[in-house]
Amino acid sequence: MTARVLEHPPAEEIRLEEVLHALADPARLEIVRFLAAAGGEVPCSAIDLAVSKSTTTHHYRVLREAGVISQVYRGTSKLNGLRRADLDRLFPGLLDSVVNALLSDGRGRRADTGPATPPTP
Amino acid sequence: MTARVLEHPPAEEIRLEEVLHALADPARLEIVRFLAAAGGEVPCSAIDLAVSKSTTTHHYRVLREAGVISQVYRGTSKLNGLRRADLDRLFPGLLDSVVNALLSDGRGRRADTGPATPPTP
Repeated sequence: MTARVLEHPPAEEIRLEEVLHALADPARLEIVRFLAAAGGEVPCSAIDLAVSKSTTTHHYRVLREAGVISQVYRGTSKLNGLRRADLDRLFPGLLDSVVNALLSDGRGRRADTGPATPPTP
Repeated sequence: MTARVLEHPPAEEIRLEEVLHALADPARLEIVRFLAAAGGEVPCSAIDLAVSKSTTTHHYRVLREAGVISQVYRGTSKLNGLRRADLDRLFPGLLDSVVNALLSDGRGRRADTGPATPPTP
């Protein structure tokens, strides 16, 4: 029996704009938030995204292909984890700032952390 | 004479995923890198994006509508600036991490900051 292996970009091919694109989606941010809170490898089934299975698979693939997460098969399930070491080395502070923003507003959809200020002109 | 005023989202309507989406493009990252390096207001004409004028206008609009930059008319030109105070308050560390990644690799397109490491499993 041959284990299926999913393709991951090597660290030197991870690009900032692709990481940002992968993060720029509420469902994918929820995956990242969950994985950051879990701190380890998590099966897809542990994260309820309230979207279809094929859409869920798509979101994980976008994250994996951008270099944000790793995915490995264990039997019939995929285990997911953040590529924190690679991301922290390539883009110091980026993942932490995103995760902290997600955790601080509890939803990751909107940051209501203070009174409105007009845009600086 | 009525000054044209461009719409900006108030700070409380700035959303993380929209900021990330606005940043997830090489041309828009170049605008952000340039504005961060300039540290003040800069006319569009100062930043050479090597794309058409209408595409350039589109990129600035995406950044403005996401809350990343402010744009104000001065005569016939638009002056652009980062909304650093709002972004730093809403998403601490995010803008700095992106700008530092852009400045450290000199191009903002790829991060070649060390030897390749295989993805963590």
